[in-house]
Order: sequence, then C-alpha cells, then structure tokens
Amino acid sequence: MKDSVSVCMIGAGRVGRVHTNSLLNAVKSCKVVALVDTVSETLTATANDFNISERYTSLEEALARSNFDAVVITTPTPTHKDLSILAARAGKHVFLEKPMALDLGECDQIIEETQKYHVNLQLGFMRRFDPEFVSAAQRIRAGEIGRPMMIKSLTHGPGLPPPWARDLKTSNGMLAEVNSHDWDTLRWLMGSDLERVYTEVANLKGKKLGVDTDNFYDNVMVSVHFENGSLGSISGICPCGYGYDARVEIVGDEGIMQIGELKGQAVVVCTNRDQGLITPIYRTWPERFAWGYIHEMRHFVDCILKDEPPQVGGLEGRWAVAGVLAGTKSFLEQRPVYLHEILQPA
Amino acid sequence: MKDSVSVCMIGAGRVGRVHTNSLLNAVKSCKVVALVDTVSETLTATANDFNISERYTSLEEALARSNFDAVVITTPTPTHKDLSILAARAGKHVFLEKPMALDLGECDQIIEETQKYHVNLQLGFMRRFDPEFVSAAQRIRAGEIGRPMMIKSLTHGPGLPPPWARDLKTSNGMLAEVNSHDWDTLRWLMGSDLERVYTEVANLKGKKLGVDTDNFYDNVMVSVHFENGSLGSISGICPCGYGYDARVEIVGDEGIMQIGELKGQAVVVCTNRDQGLITPIYRTWPERFAWGYIHEMRHFVDCILKDEPPQVGGLEGRWAVAGVLAGTKSFLEQRPVYLHEILQPA
Amino acid sequence: MKDSVSVCMIGAGRVGRVHTNSLLNAVKSCKVVALVDTVSETLTATANDFNISERYTSLEEALARSNFDAVVITTPTPTHKDLSILAARAGKHVFLEKPMALDLGECDQIIEETQKYHVNLQLGFMRRFDPEFVSAAQRIRAGEIGRPMMIKSLTHGPGLPPPWARDLKTSNGMLAEVNSHDWDTLRWLMGSDLERVYTEVANLKGKKLGVDTDNFYDNVMVSVHFENGSLGSISGICPCGYGYDARVEIVGDEGIMQIGELKGQAVVVCTNRDQGLITPIYRTWPERFAWGYIHEMRHFVDCILKDEPPQVGGLEGRWAVAGVLAGTKSFLEQRPVYLHEILQPA
Amino acid sequence: MKDSVSVCMIGAGRVGRVHTNSLLNAVKSCKVVALVDTVSETLTATANDFNISERYTSLEEALARSNFDAVVITTPTPTHKDLSILAARAGKHVFLEKPMALDLGECDQIIEETQKYHVNLQLGFMRRFDPEFVSAAQRIRAGEIGRPMMIKSLTHGPGLPPPWARDLKTSNGMLAEVNSHDWDTLRWLMGSDLERVYTEVANLKGKKLGVDTDNFYDNVMVSVHFENGSLGSISGICPCGYGYDARVEIVGDEGIMQIGELKGQAVVVCTNRDQGLITPIYRTWPERFAWGYIHEMRHFVDCILKDEPPQVGGLEGRWAVAGVLAGTKSFLEQRPVYLHEILQPA
Repeated sequence: MKDSVSVCMIGAGRVGRVHTNSLLNAVKSCKVVALVDTVSETLTATANDFNISERYTSLEEALARSNFDAVVITTPTPTHKDLSILAARAGKHVFLEKPMALDLGECDQIIEETQKYHVNLQLGFMRRFDPEFVSAAQRIRAGEIGRPMMIKSLTHGPGLPPPWARDLKTSNGMLAEVNSHDWDTLRWLMGSDLERVYTEVANLKGKKLGVDTDNFYDNVMVSVHFENGSLGSISGICPCGYGYDARVEIVGDEGIMQIGELKGQAVVVCTNRDQGLITPIYRTWPERFAWGYIHEMRHFVDCILKDEPPQVGGLEGRWAVAGVLAGTKSFLEQRPVYLHEILQPA
Repeated sequence: MKDSVSVCMIGAGRVGRVHTNSLLNAVKSCKVVALVDTVSETLTATANDFNISERYTSLEEALARSNFDAVVITTPTPTHKDLSILAARAGKHVFLEKPMALDLGECDQIIEETQKYHVNLQLGFMRRFDPEFVSAAQRIRAGEIGRPMMIKSLTHGPGLPPPWARDLKTSNGMLAEVNSHDWDTLRWLMGSDLERVYTEVANLKGKKLGVDTDNFYDNVMVSVHFENGSLGSISGICPCGYGYDARVEIVGDEGIMQIGELKGQAVVVCTNRDQGLITPIYRTWPERFAWGYIHEMRHFVDCILKDEPPQVGGLEGRWAVAGVLAGTKSFLEQRPVYLHEILQPA
Repeated sequence: MKDSVSVCMIGAGRVGRVHTNSLLNAVKSCKVVALVDTVSETLTATANDFNISERYTSLEEALARSNFDAVVITTPTPTHKDLSILAARAGKHVFLEKPMALDLGECDQIIEETQKYHVNLQLGFMRRFDPEFVSAAQRIRAGEIGRPMMIKSLTHGPGLPPPWARDLKTSNGMLAEVNSHDWDTLRWLMGSDLERVYTEVANLKGKKLGVDTDNFYDNVMVSVHFENGSLGSISGICPCGYGYDARVEIVGDEGIMQIGELKGQAVVVCTNRDQGLITPIYRTWPERFAWGYIHEMRHFVDCILKDEPPQVGGLEGRWAVAGVLAGTKSFLEQRPVYLHEILQPA
Repeated sequence: MKDSVSVCMIGAGRVGRVHTNSLLNAVKSCKVVALVDTVSETLTATANDFNISERYTSLEEALARSNFDAVVITTPTPTHKDLSILAARAGKHVFLEKPMALDLGECDQIIEETQKYHVNLQLGFMRRFDPEFVSAAQRIRAGEIGRPMMIKSLTHGPGLPPPWARDLKTSNGMLAEVNSHDWDTLRWLMGSDLERVYTEVANLKGKKLGVDTDNFYDNVMVSVHFENGSLGSISGICPCGYGYDARVEIVGDEGIMQIGELKGQAVVVCTNRDQGLITPIYRTWPERFAWGYIHEMRHFVDCILKDEPPQVGGLEGRWAVAGVLAGTKSFLEQRPVYLHEILQPA
C-alpha cells in the first residue's frame, strides 16, 4: 500500500481553495504538489496563500512537468469531461466537483474512461460525508421512520452565480450548479430512483439586478414522483442573500425526520427585547459542511491508498445530471417530464 | 349595541366541541343556547359534557323552537351550503368551518344569501387569528423580508379522515379537508392570487390500512405559480401519525421567515444519552392553534356585537375551494391546471 | 352552588390590569364589580379602560358601598396584611399577589384570619398554573428524571422596580418582589423544604442609574441546600433590560429537565447573514405566563364556586417569605443562613 | 523555522487517545513518535490502534531512547508536576492536561521550570479553542452585551470518575477533575479574577453506587463573587448519566448570551406523538468539543513551529487550581472563602 497521495488541484477558485485547505490541514498522508488555473491572477493568489510552488495554466502542462497521483477538479462544468478524461488517460485518480457534466453523454464518457484506465472517480457530493446526513441516512435505512413517503430538500445559496452558470447555453443553470446536491440527496435518502418531475421557475431578484439572460431563473420548485410511488420536492433560490441554507425533511409512514437547520452556532444573544434573540446563521457552504468537505477528501485519499472504489462515483453524478435535464425540460415545456425521456430518448 | 350573542352550535363532533369550549370558557358576551346534531349519541354526549339543555337533531327544529342570534356550523362539507342558507334566511349570523363548500356554485350561493339577508359570514380559518401567523403576516406586509418569492405551507394531520372525506364523490379529499388552511395561507401571506398549480398524490399508508377508495390519496404535493410570478408549494399528509404539523416557510428577496415549529412545549428532557433529548410535539390541532381557535370565536362574537363584517369571509373561503378544485383536476389529468380553468370554465 | 362570583379588584396597576383582563375576557362565571386604588389617576385610567363603573379609593369604602364575593389584591407588599385581613373579616375570598407579606408574623395573621372567617386564600404563584410548569411538575412526580438532585431557577425582569421595592426598609427587595416565584418553584419541584441558603448580591446597573439606596441590589445569586440533601440556586436580575426571563433546569439521578426558554414566538427571520437569525423573546411576564394568569384566575373563581380550597395558599406564600428572609440575612451577614434561624428564631 | 514537530504522548487513556487522534489525522506538520503509559495493557492497546511503534512505560525511558520535540501529558493529576518538569529539563515543550496540579506550589514549580528551560507550556483548556466559545469571548470583549454582570458555567459529565479522582487525598475531586474548565471560563469570559467563593456539595448518585469515600461529592454548586463586583456560579454533576453537558450563560448590563446547548446534532425525529421529538444529545466531551480538541493541538504545534508562547499557559492553569482549592475549602469549612486565603496564606 502507498503511504501518501500527491494531488494536483485543478481550479484555484472558491471550491478549489476549500479542498486545498482540507488536504493541507486536515487530511494526513497526502501532499498538494501543484495547482492549475487558466486565470493567472487566481492561480497566483491561491498558490501564494497556500504556499504551493508548482503552478500551471493547464492540466497538460501539469502532466508534462509534474508528478502526482490524483487530481481534484473544481473548474466550471463545461470543462469537466475533457479534464477528467485527460487525467484518467494519464492514470490519475479523479475527484470531480458537481455537477458531473453537461449531459449524459459526457457523463458516460467520463465513467468509461476512468474505468478503462483503472482510476478512481469520486463526485463532490459532500453531503454524503456530513455527519448529520450520514447519521440520518443510516437511521432511515434502519427503518426508524418507516417507509419514506415524502422528502423535501432545499438549497439556497447567498450569492449570484457567475455569468456562465446563469445561461442554459453554457450550463444547466441553478438546478445543476446549486441543486445538484438535492438531486443526489433525494435518491440517496429515499432509496428510489425518480420517475417524473415537474418544475416551476421564476426570475425575481435577477430581474432587479438586470440579469436578463434567456431562461435565467433564481427561484425553482421541483415536484418529484419516485419510481416506488413516493413524493418529493426540490427547491432552490440563488441568490437568497440571507445565508447558506441546506435542509431536508422526510416523512415516512412511521414518523418524520428533519436534517439540518438554519442556525450556524449555538451562541444566542439578546440585547433588545423589541428585536429579540439573535443566533448566527450558516453564512457559507464551507461553514455548513465543514466536516463534509474534510471527510470527502479523507475518503478520496483513503480509497486511493487502499485501492478501493469511492462510495460516491460516476453513477451518482450521472443520475443527478439526469434529474437536472428532466427538471429543465419540464419548465421549458411547462409539463411533467419522465426521467425515461432523458435516460432513453426516442 | 347588543351586549350578548346567543349561539346555536350545529355539529357536535370534534371541531364543534372545540368551538363550544371556546365560547363557554374563553369568550365573554356570548351564550351557547342550543346544540344540533343528526347523530343522537353524539348530540347527547356533547350536550351533556357542556351542560347544554336545548338539543335538536336538525337546524329546522332549532329555528322553530329556540331563539338565537348566530350559528356555528361544523358539520361535514356536503351540508354546508344548505345549512348556511337556511340560517341566513332566518337572519342568523353564520360561522362556517372550512372547507366552505364542494364547488364554487355552492360558495356563490352562500355568499349571495348571507349578503341578501345581511348576516355575517365568517370562515373557520383560525390561522388568521393565531398570534404567530398574525405577527408574521404583519411583518411581511411591513416589508421585513422584502417581496415574497417562495412560500411553502404544510399541514400533516395525525389520523385517518372519516370515509366521506376520503372519497372524491362526497368531498374534495385531503386537499380540501386538511389543506384548506394552506390554500388560504398562501394567498394571505403572499398577497397574490394563484395562477396555476400542479399536483402529485400518493396512497401509501391508506393502502396498508386497506383504503382502496378510487382516487384516495394520503400524501399530496402541490406546486404553485402565483399571478405575481412568485412560487409556492402545499404539502399534505394524513394520517401522518407523528403529531399535528402546520408550518410555513417564506423567502422574500430580502430574507427568510419560518412560522411555527414541531415543538409543542418548552419542556426538554433527557434520560438516556443514546436516545437523546425529548421534547413534546403538538399532538392535535386544538393544541397547536389554542389561541387561534379562541381569537376567531371572539372575533365572530365581536363583529356581531359591533355590527361589523368579519375579516375572513366568503371570498377567502371561495378562493380556497378554487385552489382545491384546480389541485384535484391537476392530479386527475396529470398536468398543470390554471385557476382560470376553474374560475371561468369554458 | 353559586353560579357566579363577583370580584372587587384592589390595585389598578400593571398586575391588577392583567387579572382584570383575565376575569373580563377569559374567565366565565364571574363579574368584576368594583375597582379600588388609592391613586385616583390610576384608578380612573384602569376603570375607564375596562369599563368598570364602581370606583373606590379604599377597600373600606368598597366594602361599605358595594357588594362582592371576593377581592384580588395587587397593591404593594406592605399593604397586604391589612387588606387581606379586612377582606377576610368581611367574608370576602382573597386572591393575594406575591410576596405574601413582609415577615412571617404578617403571614401568620393572614392565614389565621382567612381560616377564622372561612374564606379562601390563594397566592399569586401563576407558575403553578402554567401548562409547561404543570406538565414538568407532573413528570418529575412521576419519576421521569429520578430523584431530583439539583435545581436552578432564574427570574430576570426587564425594568427597574419602583422605589418602595428597592428599599429593604419598605420591602424585602428583589428576592421578594421578583424572585418570590423561584422560592416557591424550588419547593414545589424538588418536593423538599430548604435547609440553608447563601446569597451574593451586586448593585451594577442600579449604580449606573444613580440608585444608591442602602443595600439595594439588582443582581442576586442564591445557593440552596435542601433538607433532603439536594442542591439548588436562584438567580435574579432586575432590571435586565433584554426581556422577561423565567427558566428552570433540574437534574435528577436519572436525567435532566429544562422548563421554559427565552424564545417568545416560533417566528424566525433572517435578513442579513452577518447578523443571523432573529426570534422574538418574551418581552414581559404577561406574555410569558399568558395561560398561567388565566388559569390561576379560573382556579380562584372555580374554588369559590365549588367551595374548595385553592391549590396554592398561605402555606406556600409563607415558605417563600421565609426563603426571602433567610436569603436577605445571608448577604447582610455574609454567611450561610439556616431556614430554622428564620422559622424558629431564638 | 522547523517544519515539523515530533511528539511523545504520555498517557494512553481516553484523553490521550483523543489528542493522538487529532495529531495523527487533523494536524499537519507533526508526528507522533512515541507513546508512554505505565499500564502495559493500555499502552499496547492504544499503540496498536494508532500504529505507534515506539512504546515506553516511563518518560525517562522515552527520553533515553527516543527523539522528540514535545510531550502531551494526559496522566492522572498527581503525576503532572514531575512529568512536566522532567520533560522541561530535557528541553521538551509541554502540553499538560487540566487540572494543572494538586496545589499552587506544584503549579509554581512547573511554571518556573518550563520558563527556565525555555519550553512552551500549554494547558488543556480546549474550550478556549472551541469556535463557539471563541466567538462568544470576542463578542463579549467587543462589548456586545455590555459589562458582564453574572455568569453561570456548568459541566456535567456522564460517568463515574476513577477512584483516585474521587478522593480528596489523591485529587481535588470533581471541582478539579471535571470543573477545571469552568474555573478557567469564568475568568476568561468575565475579564476579572475571582474574589470569594461559596460551595455546596452533595453525594447522591455516588451513595447509591456505594461510593463512601470521605468528602466524596457528585453534585457541586459554587457561588462566585468577582473582584470587579460581578457574580457567578459553577455547577458540576458527575456522573450525570444523561450526556456530556457544558454550557455557559452570561448576562451583561446590555444583554444576555448563551453559549452551547444540549443538542448534539441537527437531526430531529418524531415517531410517536405521545413521546415527542427526539434530538441527539452530546454523548461525550470529544463529541462536544471536536473542534476545540483539534484546534488546541494545532495551536500547540504551531506555537512550537513559530517559536511563540501558547495563548493558554501556566498562569491560567494556576488560577483554576486556586479556584478549586478555595471552593474545596469552602465546603469543608461551610463558609465563604476568599481567594487571597489560597493565594497568600497567612
């Protein structure tokens, strides 16, 4: 067994920084050897902050000049397929951020190539590693609330996404960029695949901010009918402004379970009885999923060291993309859309 | 100004008992003079419990023999129209439980007759009188969370509804019998009428209990698109078993608001660290809306004494029925349904 | 059995208004027939607000001119003994606010005279009627947390007490005027009398506000050793400014119980992620103990109607006064003080 | 600057395992090179679990045979002084668990020797590194609740302490072994030293379990008067059974702050409305202070790497011991005890 994993980070933005920080400060048996970003200012700033000496503006360059076992890809979605495949062909293990790719064909290519070159492929669904979600999933599996009947999963993010993520021509919008986690959570916790979805969207804050991209939306509500007959919903708001909000509620035929809360810290203050109690809220996703981000990187490194497949791979990523595409088709065509329309197009 | 209102209770079941109790113990300037129920055991039991001497098996009989100013109608929905109109024509003020009636035609007749005979018509939307909902509504109106963008309202009731309420031939099902409050809450808190709805339903616990009535469902999820462009959802589960659950969450373009909680009492106990903290849940709707039920009766009596119209009348009842009908049509036809299809049928 | 109780309110201040409101709006089978206050502006204002026609500036005058069954005494503590005895001798049932009196001798006279004249004496410990405290007491009695080992009871009030209540020459200070409830709660929930107490006090906010009355304190911390060997504490802060805060925590040999919370309403708002969640706090004691105040008045009226003794009477009031006196002696003499020093002075 | 710190763990018990785990899995730039324990089974078990190859039964042996920069001492209190001094004289940096030592003389020797040999001395007050406590302290310093007037700090631990920790002949009992953190928290958050204390104790659960050691207590309540005139209390219960409970409440002249809560995870379940909501509680101190334990080890390693003194050193440890001694003297002599009686004995 190897005793250490050397990693090349691809993407020096916000998520890239979170993962770099985890690997440097909270994961043993690994080294961050190089950083890649096409934007040189971002590259320099992040590399300086984390004291990473090897810096490249392309994965090709990194592969040519550096030596590492794995990549962590946090670049925009449209780049995922090519970067993953390039890494896989070079024999590098791949940690890939969500959403996996733009369509199912891309997902299939990534899965195929990582399998062909015998490298691990782990998707960035950190909720699968959050202690609360993990405990909840175990308790549901153990039957604590009986058979799940209805699930509601929401993700509200504080800030406006970047332009490429607002445009259905270059991304799959909020359903993909923000709600990918919810698509995965639904399947995971309900233990059933989705059968059909119906989506309503609105552009409300975006409109005030002058965002007039075709089909842009900042509010989304998805109704879900599962293959096993149960029901669900996903809702998304971005930018919501008020914090980072990710919660799930599930009712089974023997009880209810709530996962997560708005409160970010158990410090309560009141200085004005006309205002009331003040409690910190989760401000950002790295705060909310602090342990999830650490545990998923530990899992990535551990699986490589032990030569085991990760718990969350291409299949999970592909299902989330399928949900996104069905949800998007639904609001574009204003009708319920069956997953089989996406999975097995005529 | 009169100094007291005498009331005839029509319906001696659970809701009837709650209102009788409020009028007897928590509302001044009123008297409960008679009780009507077609089932003699129920009539006797409730009349004995509350020490009501005048007991009748029909409103006609009560009108003929007794003397009162107002009626409180809590009988099954199919009886609402005839009882309301009979009372109105006799010059009696009407408090009518939700849902108002089976269809919009019935609603229109009730509104017309109560107006014609100059009697008050108040609908049993007690959430409009719950201190938390009232405060929330005021704060939303005052702009505290900005323009409302997305609302989620849920009602989960503990027990299986009676047979007549499970059958679309004799009622409008759970969307009417349980979720009427949510339809009203959506319009009230969002300050907008509904434009279209999409509904998914499931029969999960009912199936296990052997309920095989056509179109029976015990889980429902409604997506809502409002006229002003905002989004919403209503969900219902009955029987949920775990308690009485009525909560609302609203996000505006400047913040989020949560109304209500599962917790029924601020008494927390832990005796076993492997089990955890135990906190009472709201077991029933009279517990959850204890103040709402009292305040709505006070309002009913006050409006009669002051000769003022109640804040929640036929219009609110009619809109809730319209929502129910649109939501039902949606799941029957498996497509989004516009409210105008219900309000102005071709 | 009588079918109605007529009441004369003695004291038109804040507590007097709360009880008047309960009797007028939430308690059946009673009438408020007269109001007494020595301050004519207060008398007129309160009588006008509640539409009470009979107004007197002394109990003597009320007894001479009016006709009633009971009195509700909410005047300052130094008047309690004389008013209670005067009412008792006239055959009127007595509801007496806490603290019962200034010393044990006064308590004994009140108890003796009410017994001699066969009238009910109920003390204003509304926590005994608060649904959460009642439920907690029952669960403790039922053994849910085992044998109680340690109890902490706190009362923090928002505003500065009136001058007479700040001076040990005219009152027993905060321990009596604010913390009387805690003294009673300790005995009630622990099921044991107090053996010794040790008290620390401080004048911190008062000093800033210029209150320099001898022995005035606005912060107090009492350690308690019970006769059965268990431990406890009472803490008081007045004025605390931030709200009305009354909570209890008890640990038994099989678990912990928390009673009450700061939160005043289940309406949570966040509009600024740097500030966090905002939840209403209980602003005042009538808000916190809304049901307690109603139920204690219902109990007072019911006991008179049924000719039964109230659950909370002179004995409970006397024990609370004994605690206050021991606690006060402790901080004056800077040593632990035994209750028997107060109960059986040498 | 060094780029890594090698550590010898002294003590292979529960706390030793927690620190070893932090150093191995969550702290970069450090190595655990050796483990010392006098009990060979414990030594072997822990060394095996963490795959530590160098194992010694004494610090002397470790110093003779191994090579390291620092020690982490988690052995019973009576060993603290000798082990710390031995390590210091060998030039090793010292992380020392609470309580620092048995008396002030021992504290002084430890401080003196670590200073003389220019090694760092960090005390195991992990609450100083808990994100909630840190944030709370900053907000208090920033004046958010005004001038602190009253603080209550509690620590309740689940299990019965080992025999040596129950006996005042070999330890300072629960006030030292469990409540050391509270003594430190009081000074830290109030920004004032303690002036006098009064302590009540009880042996309740211990008695049932047959613990009859002289002066053993399992419940303790300490009243505190600070030098700056403000008030406080410390309470301790061990074994409490129901979980690990560490909370603080502070009231300042402008508001209240609550730090910590019983709830261990934001996963709420209800399956039975007669039972209510169930929420996980913190079961153990490693769960409650997961981040605190990691951050204090990071701080220990960082300070050594940067050649800086730790934020929590001998002075803080000494003050906590002084509090313990005053508190113990108080209950033994049944009177309030001034800190100066301990700090400057006659």
